[in-house]
Amino acid sequence: MHETGWSLHSQLAADTVPVCDLPLSRLLAMNDANFPWLILVPRRAGASEMIDLGAEQALLMDEISLVSRALKDETRCDKLNVAAIGNVVPQLHVHIVARRKDDAAWPKPVWGAAPRRPYDPAVLDAFVAIVRDLVRGAYESSRPTS
Amino acid sequence: MHETGWSLHSQLAADTVPVCDLPLSRLLAMNDANFPWLILVPRRAGASEMIDLGAEQALLMDEISLVSRALKDETRCDKLNVAAIGNVVPQLHVHIVARRKDDAAWPKPVWGAAPRRPYDPAVLDAFVAIVRDLVRGAYESSRPTS
Repeated sequence: MHETGWSLHSQLAADTVPVCDLPLSRLLAMNDANFPWLILVPRRAGASEMIDLGAEQALLMDEISLVSRALKDETRCDKLNVAAIGNVVPQLHVHIVARRKDDAAWPKPVWGAAPRRPYDPAVLDAFVAIVRDLVRGAYESSRPTS
Repeated sequence: MHETGWSLHSQLAADTVPVCDLPLSRLLAMNDANFPWLILVPRRAGASEMIDLGAEQALLMDEISLVSRALKDETRCDKLNVAAIGNVVPQLHVHIVARRKDDAAWPKPVWGAAPRRPYDPAVLDAFVAIVRDLVRGAYESSRPTS
């Protein structure tokens, strides 16, 4: 699959803000103050299922792992929820959500559980900046040294 | 992490039937006739998050991929839903669910959406046998030839 022809689905663009681009995926932050909620979208035109990525599934798993670790370190959450669902938005995207036992939906999954509550813009900016630094730092330290 | 000390969580044991063991994970079939629904449980004591697996995350992704392909080939579903949630059962487990646009919960996720509806035992046996054959066949064909 190719990056050429890929563009972010309009629903994902409307619900999120961009964090940064990783080698395979664009990292987004959901604008929902109920949950620290990140989304990885592989920049591959036409991908709907993880299996559509073929050998690049390994790269997606690396990015899921790196983002999961950053989100867990930042939030000290009780549980991560990681999911590729896509029943509404067919473009392949992977949710990575930090859950707390006192959050707005616990123990239910977040999808459709609580009305979305937009962040105060400054709070969202700060969250995105922290995640971007953690993810970029982890990515740089994971690259082989030359 | 080690297999020693691992045993299947009692809630997963109660809700499912075993399909087969893959190199990392036990594959289970949820006893819910509403959805063709498989669950991979890495046999690693104490694992709760995918990131707990370290380097074995790559092996988990291989098994998710192999099981996803088998389930999609068998069901000709409209969408796969793949998720590691674990808010209720903390033992690491990955749901792989075949969704149809006319199923009992579409487009909502399956968790908590529709009351569980046990299979007719013969139908469940047949489903498990088909999945086991597909997964074992795929696994055998993916191993390097000696």
